[in-house]
Amino acid sequence: MCISISVDLTVRNRTGAITNQTRSVMDYNAILQRIKKEVSLHYGEGKIADYIPALSKIPPKKFGMAVKLVNGEEFHVGDAAETFSIQSISKVASLSLYIRKHGLEIGSRVGVEPSGTAFNSLVQLEYEQGIPRNPFINAGAIVIIDGLINLYPDLKQGILDFVRTNSQNNHIYFDEEVAASECATGNRNFALAHFMKSYGNINNDIHTVLDAYFHQCSLAMSCIDLVRCFYFLANEGITEDSLRILSRREAKRVNAIMLTCGTYDAVGDFAFRVGIPSKSGVGGGILGIIPKQMSIAVWSPELNAQGNSVLGMKAMELFTTYTGISVF
Amino acid sequence: MCISISVDLTVRNRTGAITNQTRSVMDYNAILQRIKKEVSLHYGEGKIADYIPALSKIPPKKFGMAVKLVNGEEFHVGDAAETFSIQSISKVASLSLYIRKHGLEIGSRVGVEPSGTAFNSLVQLEYEQGIPRNPFINAGAIVIIDGLINLYPDLKQGILDFVRTNSQNNHIYFDEEVAASECATGNRNFALAHFMKSYGNINNDIHTVLDAYFHQCSLAMSCIDLVRCFYFLANEGITEDSLRILSRREAKRVNAIMLTCGTYDAVGDFAFRVGIPSKSGVGGGILGIIPKQMSIAVWSPELNAQGNSVLGMKAMELFTTYTGISVF
Amino acid sequence: MCISISVDLTVRNRTGAITNQTRSVMDYNAILQRIKKEVSLHYGEGKIADYIPALSKIPPKKFGMAVKLVNGEEFHVGDAAETFSIQSISKVASLSLYIRKHGLEIGSRVGVEPSGTAFNSLVQLEYEQGIPRNPFINAGAIVIIDGLINLYPDLKQGILDFVRTNSQNNHIYFDEEVAASECATGNRNFALAHFMKSYGNINNDIHTVLDAYFHQCSLAMSCIDLVRCFYFLANEGITEDSLRILSRREAKRVNAIMLTCGTYDAVGDFAFRVGIPSKSGVGGGILGIIPKQMSIAVWSPELNAQGNSVLGMKAMELFTTYTGISVF
Amino acid sequence: MCISISVDLTVRNRTGAITNQTRSVMDYNAILQRIKKEVSLHYGEGKIADYIPALSKIPPKKFGMAVKLVNGEEFHVGDAAETFSIQSISKVASLSLYIRKHGLEIGSRVGVEPSGTAFNSLVQLEYEQGIPRNPFINAGAIVIIDGLINLYPDLKQGILDFVRTNSQNNHIYFDEEVAASECATGNRNFALAHFMKSYGNINNDIHTVLDAYFHQCSLAMSCIDLVRCFYFLANEGITEDSLRILSRREAKRVNAIMLTCGTYDAVGDFAFRVGIPSKSGVGGGILGIIPKQMSIAVWSPELNAQGNSVLGMKAMELFTTYTGISVF
Repeated sequence: MCISISVDLTVRNRTGAITNQTRSVMDYNAILQRIKKEVSLHYGEGKIADYIPALSKIPPKKFGMAVKLVNGEEFHVGDAAETFSIQSISKVASLSLYIRKHGLEIGSRVGVEPSGTAFNSLVQLEYEQGIPRNPFINAGAIVIIDGLINLYPDLKQGILDFVRTNSQNNHIYFDEEVAASECATGNRNFALAHFMKSYGNINNDIHTVLDAYFHQCSLAMSCIDLVRCFYFLANEGITEDSLRILSRREAKRVNAIMLTCGTYDAVGDFAFRVGIPSKSGVGGGILGIIPKQMSIAVWSPELNAQGNSVLGMKAMELFTTYTGISVF
Repeated sequence: MCISISVDLTVRNRTGAITNQTRSVMDYNAILQRIKKEVSLHYGEGKIADYIPALSKIPPKKFGMAVKLVNGEEFHVGDAAETFSIQSISKVASLSLYIRKHGLEIGSRVGVEPSGTAFNSLVQLEYEQGIPRNPFINAGAIVIIDGLINLYPDLKQGILDFVRTNSQNNHIYFDEEVAASECATGNRNFALAHFMKSYGNINNDIHTVLDAYFHQCSLAMSCIDLVRCFYFLANEGITEDSLRILSRREAKRVNAIMLTCGTYDAVGDFAFRVGIPSKSGVGGGILGIIPKQMSIAVWSPELNAQGNSVLGMKAMELFTTYTGISVF
Repeated sequence: MCISISVDLTVRNRTGAITNQTRSVMDYNAILQRIKKEVSLHYGEGKIADYIPALSKIPPKKFGMAVKLVNGEEFHVGDAAETFSIQSISKVASLSLYIRKHGLEIGSRVGVEPSGTAFNSLVQLEYEQGIPRNPFINAGAIVIIDGLINLYPDLKQGILDFVRTNSQNNHIYFDEEVAASECATGNRNFALAHFMKSYGNINNDIHTVLDAYFHQCSLAMSCIDLVRCFYFLANEGITEDSLRILSRREAKRVNAIMLTCGTYDAVGDFAFRVGIPSKSGVGGGILGIIPKQMSIAVWSPELNAQGNSVLGMKAMELFTTYTGISVF
Repeated sequence: MCISISVDLTVRNRTGAITNQTRSVMDYNAILQRIKKEVSLHYGEGKIADYIPALSKIPPKKFGMAVKLVNGEEFHVGDAAETFSIQSISKVASLSLYIRKHGLEIGSRVGVEPSGTAFNSLVQLEYEQGIPRNPFINAGAIVIIDGLINLYPDLKQGILDFVRTNSQNNHIYFDEEVAASECATGNRNFALAHFMKSYGNINNDIHTVLDAYFHQCSLAMSCIDLVRCFYFLANEGITEDSLRILSRREAKRVNAIMLTCGTYDAVGDFAFRVGIPSKSGVGGGILGIIPKQMSIAVWSPELNAQGNSVLGMKAMELFTTYTGISVF
């Protein structure tokens, strides 16, 4: 039993001295294959996001999954190399950039507590005077973008550079059709931004802020791109190329926010079923971080009522079951 | 380095074959002593709960902490043997009893999502038609009590028996003065209960339900009692005497709810700073569970603005720092 | 008789040709007969209140209406002499008693503004820290009762004496079955009372307060009783027996609150269709006051979605149409 | 002159002794002079609106008042001929135009009930799915503008023509500085508009809608202009030139909405103190309509906490006191 021990040891000592025997204990390829087969029973249980026309055209029967261990090994299955709209998963990138510049205390402009209501509610925002509950609800992500604009001469390019470099993939792009589609249907986000500006919590021009926000959400990436891009969160803030993106504490902060706020109004259910820090997007992607062990990405476009990928959640749940990894 | 590995191995293989060498790696006594010393700098930063007269009389300069490993070893420091009013920590006991009888799907009468607002808000309850967000806000805990009443001929005695047996301490008692005090000042809890009953989500007589609820909150226990009582949550549902209280999945459910909902409106901050499933009470106690490793309890009566013990939170944070244990 | 007729004619024809003959123009008996006939088309459009068993047993095809001019003349039609449960109309009695004792400035414990949401919402109460919006929502009426308890050794008797004396009818009684029924199903009112007490806005024992409240609501009176009882509001505060109940300004205050807050969430629609200060009850009664002219009462048990009598509203609307009386 | 006077006297003495001599009793000029003198004691009790820079520059010690009887007579005092920013009073103009085109049933896109909370709250709007409570809160007025845009090739010109024709004053203008100022600081209105558009309750381009809205609010008119402009509401829908703007019932509808929704969160207090349909604006103006008798306008820039003119409210109150006119 207990493949996870070897994994764990690998991570913990971080010596690089990973013996062949530990490598062979866990057969990730077999696990991913098995997961792919099992989740296929759940096609048709969810619905593709239709609030953006550009998203609704995706073929529903897609499933891809990728895993990247902190030792650098990668495993994948299915459509793991196919790009999709990462949507809210991009908020992890901008939050990381923000914390990198501003440090841990992001608190005065945005909280770090679960929201407890629908992810784009204005009620809570009014109740709390224009301060969003956390950086993963739309309002909070917009504040983060606003805060980054002053730091980057060209924020859209900055975000693109960040994910391209981390993912070692210069072909990652903004899907302009999706971005335009989000803008055209983005009245609620415009409402959020204007509302926060009325409280003084947005400093820049609304259209500049939302243009960057909509582009960030339109990032087209694959599961493989994602596990590479966010590897540093599993590796205490350091990329595979040994670049420090965040301090150890800062990476811990991002992971904690993912666990408590990363999956809309299913945080509690996600914690129980999956039990690892995760961030989902309405494009059907889910990013998972097992601190000091690995990054995981899964994609399947059909969503449940909370806006999380049905097959994606199931796959994450099976993954933690078959590997024995869970924080609970 | 990395004392935590030995601990981890101990737990994971669950063979009982704990060699002396692993035992000696981590010096918990030294860690607890060090914590006790360091947290003493923070006396005076918080305020003792004054909404119940019986609570406000506690001397503020109290600090106790206890740890119980899944191998049975116990460590403690300071006032760890002194009883205090465990208040909301008792909700972990009743939730465990409820899940034991009703299984994982507690969902139709109470949710499992963070509340996002003050712990006793009626707004959310009205918005969600009398269904509390989770079992750790007052409304949810009252529903749990209501659900247990049908199962126990004498619920108060049932709860008392449960904590006494688990803690191996027949002297644990309800502090009748505290219970009476809570009842006398418990208008908001009466409001919650009547409100939920108006939605059909309370089945029994309000006074019977709240009498059990107030008594549960009045339980007088020590840190040592607590780590013994809730040892089963760290040990995948099984007590030290090999009694199965909960299934492995059920224990995981309780732990997940503790992490996402256990510390009022400081869940996100707690996850970041402490990073383990915890439940706090306004008596100044905090219970922490490190799944498959240990249960922890700390007590110090001065509270911060969110109602969590100032020294308690600091102690938990230091504990995870010094042991290297954190889920993030 | 009937100065008001001449007034109205004066206004309507705007000729200035005011003659004595106008006095005899208005045939109230004919008007009431005509109304009775016309409203009968609307039987079946509403639903009898079923939240209290004792109310749900009323035969639906009832209609009574009474008018009492300030000169003392009375007119009535249909079931005007039959008693029914006046429910919230009783709040006009207790508000009058309260203002009589406390004067115009009722403001610190209860507002005088329309509520804008359902008549028993706790959300608003929480948002406004336990201060009800006005004395006609349940929360406000409960505060009024609480305020009266200190002034009357036996408040229930005091209210009964007040309506009996004003109505010149010693047979008016509390319907104990209705009162008991309200108490048994009154969880939301208990919730409101406890909630306000948690904010310090209820001084007396909850059960004492609500017992008086439920009894007040259970008052069994007829349309004829009502027009006599509240005649003083039409007559600038003075009863037919020349007793001053309220000052002129105080009567004006009560009438203004009736117009802006008297008909649940249909205040705007009522103002437009009927245009006179009114107070409705879920027993199907409506009291109307035309200041300086007359009191009106109508009863028919079927209610619309807002909780107002369907035939009653229609009758009030026709009455203002046929008499030409409206404040707009 | 002044049939209304005789009416009032008729009512008040209730003697039936109505004579021609009553016609000459009321000296409006004396009344207005007396009011002007008395309200001057209240300078300094309020604060000039400062949320728009262009408004904050008005000299505070201004007071003007005008009255226009349905027989055509006009009376005025003080700064009654001076133009000021009518702000929300303009909503009466657009509502009248809307009802003229759409008839009484404005209901599917905007309600007619008091709002019960701050005049620009998004909470209520979210709770009620993008349907504003009434046409006088900002959200409702924006919906009205949106509904008018399809009917007018050039809505701004249409509104300007309407008030110019009614007021017989071709010099009425949009204050472009105020309009630009409102737009620059109008984030909350942008939020409201985008939010409602997200619910499908705004059909036109947000900037087109708000441009018309901000211009409407920037209308510069005097008290004399206002009483002429809205004379038709006092005269059952007909202008002094015998043009029918609204049907009798439609005029009644507008007046009823003014009484129940016209003065922000002071509707109840206004009903009691003034007792006539009124609409106030943050420029310090108040328009009052006494149906079938007269239109009244008053202006003084200092506002109370609810956003109503301090001297204006006092003047209206004194006017109803000295003339004996009140609906209560």
